[in-house]
Amino acid sequence: MEFDFVGELPFRVLYGALQLVLIFIIAGIAIGISNKFISRFSERRKKAKFKMDEAKADTLASTAKSIVKYVIYFIAGVAILESFGVDTKGIIAAAGVGAIAIGFAAQKLVADIITGFFVLFEDQFSVGDYIMVQGIDGIVEELGLRITKVRGFDGSLHIIPNRQIEIVTNKIRGDMRALVDIGIAYEEDIDKATEVINRVAEEYNRENEEIVEGPTVLGVSSLGSSDVVLTVMAKTKPMAQWEVERELRKRIKLSFDKEGIEIPHQKHVVYNKTEN
Amino acid sequence: MEFDFVGELPFRVLYGALQLVLIFIIAGIAIGISNKFISRFSERRKKAKFKMDEAKADTLASTAKSIVKYVIYFIAGVAILESFGVDTKGIIAAAGVGAIAIGFAAQKLVADIITGFFVLFEDQFSVGDYIMVQGIDGIVEELGLRITKVRGFDGSLHIIPNRQIEIVTNKIRGDMRALVDIGIAYEEDIDKATEVINRVAEEYNRENEEIVEGPTVLGVSSLGSSDVVLTVMAKTKPMAQWEVERELRKRIKLSFDKEGIEIPHQKHVVYNKTEN
Amino acid sequence: MEFDFVGELPFRVLYGALQLVLIFIIAGIAIGISNKFISRFSERRKKAKFKMDEAKADTLASTAKSIVKYVIYFIAGVAILESFGVDTKGIIAAAGVGAIAIGFAAQKLVADIITGFFVLFEDQFSVGDYIMVQGIDGIVEELGLRITKVRGFDGSLHIIPNRQIEIVTNKIRGDMRALVDIGIAYEEDIDKATEVINRVAEEYNRENEEIVEGPTVLGVSSLGSSDVVLTVMAKTKPMAQWEVERELRKRIKLSFDKEGIEIPHQKHVVYNKTEN
Amino acid sequence: MEFDFVGELPFRVLYGALQLVLIFIIAGIAIGISNKFISRFSERRKKAKFKMDEAKADTLASTAKSIVKYVIYFIAGVAILESFGVDTKGIIAAAGVGAIAIGFAAQKLVADIITGFFVLFEDQFSVGDYIMVQGIDGIVEELGLRITKVRGFDGSLHIIPNRQIEIVTNKIRGDMRALVDIGIAYEEDIDKATEVINRVAEEYNRENEEIVEGPTVLGVSSLGSSDVVLTVMAKTKPMAQWEVERELRKRIKLSFDKEGIEIPHQKHVVYNKTEN
Amino acid sequence: MEFDFVGELPFRVLYGALQLVLIFIIAGIAIGISNKFISRFSERRKKAKFKMDEAKADTLASTAKSIVKYVIYFIAGVAILESFGVDTKGIIAAAGVGAIAIGFAAQKLVADIITGFFVLFEDQFSVGDYIMVQGIDGIVEELGLRITKVRGFDGSLHIIPNRQIEIVTNKIRGDMRALVDIGIAYEEDIDKATEVINRVAEEYNRENEEIVEGPTVLGVSSLGSSDVVLTVMAKTKPMAQWEVERELRKRIKLSFDKEGIEIPHQKHVVYNKTEN
Amino acid sequence: MEFDFVGELPFRVLYGALQLVLIFIIAGIAIGISNKFISRFSERRKKAKFKMDEAKADTLASTAKSIVKYVIYFIAGVAILESFGVDTKGIIAAAGVGAIAIGFAAQKLVADIITGFFVLFEDQFSVGDYIMVQGIDGIVEELGLRITKVRGFDGSLHIIPNRQIEIVTNKIRGDMRALVDIGIAYEEDIDKATEVINRVAEEYNRENEEIVEGPTVLGVSSLGSSDVVLTVMAKTKPMAQWEVERELRKRIKLSFDKEGIEIPHQKHVVYNKTEN
Amino acid sequence: MEFDFVGELPFRVLYGALQLVLIFIIAGIAIGISNKFISRFSERRKKAKFKMDEAKADTLASTAKSIVKYVIYFIAGVAILESFGVDTKGIIAAAGVGAIAIGFAAQKLVADIITGFFVLFEDQFSVGDYIMVQGIDGIVEELGLRITKVRGFDGSLHIIPNRQIEIVTNKIRGDMRALVDIGIAYEEDIDKATEVINRVAEEYNRENEEIVEGPTVLGVSSLGSSDVVLTVMAKTKPMAQWEVERELRKRIKLSFDKEGIEIPHQKHVVYNKTEN
Repeated sequence: MEFDFVGELPFRVLYGALQLVLIFIIAGIAIGISNKFISRFSERRKKAKFKMDEAKADTLASTAKSIVKYVIYFIAGVAILESFGVDTKGIIAAAGVGAIAIGFAAQKLVADIITGFFVLFEDQFSVGDYIMVQGIDGIVEELGLRITKVRGFDGSLHIIPNRQIEIVTNKIRGDMRALVDIGIAYEEDIDKATEVINRVAEEYNRENEEIVEGPTVLGVSSLGSSDVVLTVMAKTKPMAQWEVERELRKRIKLSFDKEGIEIPHQKHVVYNKTEN
Repeated sequence: MEFDFVGELPFRVLYGALQLVLIFIIAGIAIGISNKFISRFSERRKKAKFKMDEAKADTLASTAKSIVKYVIYFIAGVAILESFGVDTKGIIAAAGVGAIAIGFAAQKLVADIITGFFVLFEDQFSVGDYIMVQGIDGIVEELGLRITKVRGFDGSLHIIPNRQIEIVTNKIRGDMRALVDIGIAYEEDIDKATEVINRVAEEYNRENEEIVEGPTVLGVSSLGSSDVVLTVMAKTKPMAQWEVERELRKRIKLSFDKEGIEIPHQKHVVYNKTEN
Repeated sequence: MEFDFVGELPFRVLYGALQLVLIFIIAGIAIGISNKFISRFSERRKKAKFKMDEAKADTLASTAKSIVKYVIYFIAGVAILESFGVDTKGIIAAAGVGAIAIGFAAQKLVADIITGFFVLFEDQFSVGDYIMVQGIDGIVEELGLRITKVRGFDGSLHIIPNRQIEIVTNKIRGDMRALVDIGIAYEEDIDKATEVINRVAEEYNRENEEIVEGPTVLGVSSLGSSDVVLTVMAKTKPMAQWEVERELRKRIKLSFDKEGIEIPHQKHVVYNKTEN
Repeated sequence: MEFDFVGELPFRVLYGALQLVLIFIIAGIAIGISNKFISRFSERRKKAKFKMDEAKADTLASTAKSIVKYVIYFIAGVAILESFGVDTKGIIAAAGVGAIAIGFAAQKLVADIITGFFVLFEDQFSVGDYIMVQGIDGIVEELGLRITKVRGFDGSLHIIPNRQIEIVTNKIRGDMRALVDIGIAYEEDIDKATEVINRVAEEYNRENEEIVEGPTVLGVSSLGSSDVVLTVMAKTKPMAQWEVERELRKRIKLSFDKEGIEIPHQKHVVYNKTEN
Repeated sequence: MEFDFVGELPFRVLYGALQLVLIFIIAGIAIGISNKFISRFSERRKKAKFKMDEAKADTLASTAKSIVKYVIYFIAGVAILESFGVDTKGIIAAAGVGAIAIGFAAQKLVADIITGFFVLFEDQFSVGDYIMVQGIDGIVEELGLRITKVRGFDGSLHIIPNRQIEIVTNKIRGDMRALVDIGIAYEEDIDKATEVINRVAEEYNRENEEIVEGPTVLGVSSLGSSDVVLTVMAKTKPMAQWEVERELRKRIKLSFDKEGIEIPHQKHVVYNKTEN
Repeated sequence: MEFDFVGELPFRVLYGALQLVLIFIIAGIAIGISNKFISRFSERRKKAKFKMDEAKADTLASTAKSIVKYVIYFIAGVAILESFGVDTKGIIAAAGVGAIAIGFAAQKLVADIITGFFVLFEDQFSVGDYIMVQGIDGIVEELGLRITKVRGFDGSLHIIPNRQIEIVTNKIRGDMRALVDIGIAYEEDIDKATEVINRVAEEYNRENEEIVEGPTVLGVSSLGSSDVVLTVMAKTKPMAQWEVERELRKRIKLSFDKEGIEIPHQKHVVYNKTEN
Repeated sequence: MEFDFVGELPFRVLYGALQLVLIFIIAGIAIGISNKFISRFSERRKKAKFKMDEAKADTLASTAKSIVKYVIYFIAGVAILESFGVDTKGIIAAAGVGAIAIGFAAQKLVADIITGFFVLFEDQFSVGDYIMVQGIDGIVEELGLRITKVRGFDGSLHIIPNRQIEIVTNKIRGDMRALVDIGIAYEEDIDKATEVINRVAEEYNRENEEIVEGPTVLGVSSLGSSDVVLTVMAKTKPMAQWEVERELRKRIKLSFDKEGIEIPHQKHVVYNKTEN
């Protein structure tokens, strides 16, 4: 800001005053516009996908407005000081501390919202889906802008900030697998046991509409120390897999009882030495 | 700052002095305003949701005031030096070290407050709720601006900085599940056992108002090496699940005794070879 | 911005007005160009490898357009203020907070896209492959710009942000190994057991086209407390390894039964002392 | 710094000299003020809550003084060079390396002090409390500005930098729970055992003033393979819970002996097959 | 950019036009040079150590060229705006967001390439080596600029971004150790057993050229509850260790059978109390 | 740098030359001062608490001197270029890469030294103390400026960079606890056993001067499946706790033998079913 | 860059040309110096402690030279553009992306070299030492500027980037401990067993020069469910500890056999109930 002190002073004062007025006008307009912007956004929120009840939306809007107001005050203040020729490097340096602190903290909020957007946009899951996220599983109850609520099977309500949603496992998008391991004694005939299970499976398939495919005996999945393990698999509609597994276990057990096939206890061979 | 040394000096001195006076006035006003602001905030704190006792609020307010005071001194000092034509790049560089150190440390404080705000705003939990956070579970005793206090069931008081509150599990927002596993011997009749349990369950449901939905036998959840495991499930009011589980276990055990259904010990088959 | 207040004012006003017009023109052109750019990219997306259905592409395009629009408004606004001689340091400082917050959050999105590009470019896996990533395994169902969908064997749909794809294990790029451990009693003849297994293996190899090499007995892989463990290995076409293992176990078990080779239960030596 | 070389030189030299003198004076004053400030702070430290013995306080003060001194030298040096028209961008760049290194390292120190302040301000714990922090538990022996000393029950002295204090578990702020699990044989009468325990509990409650509530039998907490587990709970004054648990175990054991109630060993059912 | 509006305007316009032309020329040259550079690099890639098939190299080259082109457009655009006196602080601030996002994401790519360079330069491993990296082991199939492909022994193809290669374990750079633990009964003579093993070892060493040293009995490595464990060690050529271990186990087992040395089952002493 | 080309050139050249000379002089002085500074520091190091042998101190000093020399060369070079009117923005940008790389790496070194200072200043431990840090325990052998050497009990020498020293457990600052668990059979009289242990304890206390308090029987710490566990505790001088525990075990065992109190083996109840 | 267009142009062109020439000269000199510097460093490397074979040193030197060359080109290019009055803010912003990416990646390289320097300078370990680092143990084979090679006992070659070397455990800097646990039956006389072990120990000490200090019986380290455990300890020369432990076990076992002291199998008390 360079000028001729003697002759230009009046003009300069005038110019400074004009700048001041300009800054006030611009700041006023900026506040007005951002307020309208926030109000409109808030109104839309109330009716949108990420539903938010009215009271909350209003609280949030007024908080946002007063934050924006103080930010614009700060910017205008710096501009005014500068227009008086007062140096503002110190202010900028002091603001730097705040910038780092607030910027890093706010980053989490931004990450929440961005992830929330992508979950919705890519339809990773919707309300009512059975999902697994960060070791938590349950039914999605609410999918919000910042948090997702998942109802665990034990009745717990898990509240998950969206940025924690990295790898999602959706368990309702396709047929699920029911898997039952049955151990039979080494003395039993594997083919006969397989045949008995298949008979049970066929009958069960006919009775239960939730079963999409099988149950079928996959084969010998392990030769344990006490039993030969047969694995039985079926495909079911989502959420029906547990019921099918439970019923399969019961039916196989009952028909094995009928056919005299042993499901063995743990077996040990003991060499007794009494004369020690 | 460019000027004609010979003719302009008196004007320049005048101008410099004016700037100095201006800086002092602005700094004074800034301190006054921020002090009033802090006092008002502190007064409100004393009566607000995040209650804070008076002594603490006053201590905090006076600490905040003196921090603000020194920050404004620093900013004004830099502006004065600059108005004398003294370069302040060195000061800014030195302040940078502090900025990084303080900024990163302060970021935790900001994160505490932001998270605290969202816990409250989104009503993630309130005082008296039974929650689980970061592997800690208990009843919320206090929900503060910076920390949350949770009373564990063993009587411990857990003090959690709010920024640690990421995934919250609220266990009081809906009916809870009571789950009991009962192992019966392979020789027992599964249907009879189920029937006995159902009879017990019905009776218990009638007696206990905390039970929202049956206990019912889900089915055979495992074919173990010694027992067939039946799973019994009920829905209860929050916090009643443990009592229901304990009582269910006792009642089922007693009626099994009456009906002669065996809850088996571990079973082994031993092939004895004495002639080794 | 230095000038002679008295004589230059008209010219300066003219110059300022010209600059203003220039800024508006440039901003308009910039918005136009970027809009066209986004539209073209979006059109290509609809037909490209990373297929994206039309509605999604359009939503994304309009979101991107309005983001770009506001960014250009911000840039033009700063330029206009500066051209009026209003200082904008305060604005830049305030924008810094946003820059840190948004920049760090956006970084994840950029990382997703870059990794997605390399997965495709280096053909790390394609749709239909059986892969293992971050402890999740299954069949790739969709390989997108930002996320990859993997169908687990239990029917779960795993949705993985591409940046999580670090070490990929592709299980369909070459022959797989089928491995069966068979424990025989210490009393049995190792060579005879080997011979029996080899006979079974040869026969099985002839019958099953999925087997690429062997099965062969590798040797004694452990001298346990109850059994001598022989390891049998085969090479199979991808995805056939489990079937081959299951069938091998069954066939070896059956021929051992025929040949009278014992697969032992756990064995213990017990020194009985009744006179205690 | 723009000037007319021919005519202004003498004035300029004068002006430069004046600036130099000014910088020296300001630097001197700054050192003086900061030294007084440090001394005063150090004096207060000696008598304050965070007590610090005199020798340590003096060492710390003189270290701080010489750090401040060199920082001011650095700032003044940069200002002097700049006033001679020597460019200092290189210095600032070189100082940047140091700034990153020292700033990040110092950040830990700042975090220690801030956390220490909050522990004290929020009264998270005080000397003599039994706390648990970062997997370490014991009695707080000293609560300092930078570190906290905790005496473990095995006599170890744990020295914890305050920034490590995130989630604090204070075990002395309220009644504690004493919990004893008692396994009885399946053959025993649950109601009789409960009654016996209740009798013991009542008597013990009368004798011991440390017990606040109960002990009461909560119910059947598990149906194990060998025993039915009853859980007994009491509320005690802090630190008395272990003694109460030990005494309860002894008294219950003795009265079970008297009443002939069996606390069972592990039970097994063995099917012997000698003719193998 | 300071000038006399009245007299200088024509010159200024001329000067501005000259600058514009200059910027276009420079930008054109820069694009030309970088394109040639990329092409040359791409050509070399096709024949180099890190082999890359032609189609991939071309795709990569054209991608790189268009990235470079847009970067140069951006730089030139900023320069042009600035030459018209339009302020570009806003653009730089907006670019900052992108800089952080892209810079951090690109850092992974740079880290991949640098690590890849050092793996090659320091010959940490080459194609065909048996290595272990990040818990993955197998044979190196391809060592690329950005990724390394490792074939696991189960047939899996592990694709590892080079930056994940931190600690490398190369198992083919020197003789490997074969280690066999043999448990003998407490009743057996340790020296006799050692002698028998040594006889077997000598014979085996003579027969197998893959054995570099030993096998020798190291001594008693454990006094277990059922057996005295002798450890036998040999040095073999790389990859032969497993075969040697398996064969050693078999041969020792057979000669122990011949010599009547017992490899014991788990041993227990049982005090029977029938009169309970 | 603005001037009138025609008339001022000679003065300007003079002025530039003066600046150049000035920079050389300042750089020379800066190198001289920092060298003396380093030498003095190095001399003091040789005699200080953090002892360092002479050869090492000299190596370190000459390394530091040449680093400082090159840094000053760099700063002076930038200043000279700038004084010729050559732009140095490119240099600063290039130096930024180095700054990030070196700054972050150097930060570890600074953290080592700061932590080392605090360990010493706060007397967290000294040479000869038995400490536990980061899962490593042993006797401190050397406490250096950058590293700490700890001798493990198995003879290993652990070398720990000081920045790894976060939570320190010092096991020599106060009496230690000796703790012995003794299991007695359910048939034994708890009071008699307690009495026997107390008699042994009294006698041992009298004989051993290292015992500070007790040993006393705390009570029944567990009702196991085979035994009733009594816990015996004593307070000893530091490092004597293990000897006291070992001797206590032996003495209690011997007096139990004398008094006929059974320390039980694992006990099982077996229901034999031979007629299966 | 402010000037009078009409009169100064010729001078200005001259001045610009001079600057251009200056920049070329300086860039040329800078490349020359840095090349010489790199060559000298590379020459020294070939003969230094961190030995590096000649081919590698040359490759590295030429890579470094071409990197330096391009960096200087970039700096000179920016300076030239600026001297033509072309704005370079855009270039600096674009370079920022690269700076972040390369700076962070290069930081690892710098960390490797700094750590390598300190390992050598502080003599943390040298070639031939038996160390443990990051869970890897073995003999150091090579200690390089960037990586350290450790030969595991199974023959593996571990290649560790130096920055991974944080806590080092050196197992060759002092006598090592040999530790043997011997379980004897509860029926045995502890003192007699101790005496037998001591006799064996004395004899062994006399025979083996690697033993530095006794084996001595420390005492009863545990009262297990089946045995009384005595701990025997010796101090040996480094690397001899395993041999001493193995030999001690054998000798103690043999003398226990001679003296008839029982090393017990697992002992159980069984209450048989056949009448169930």
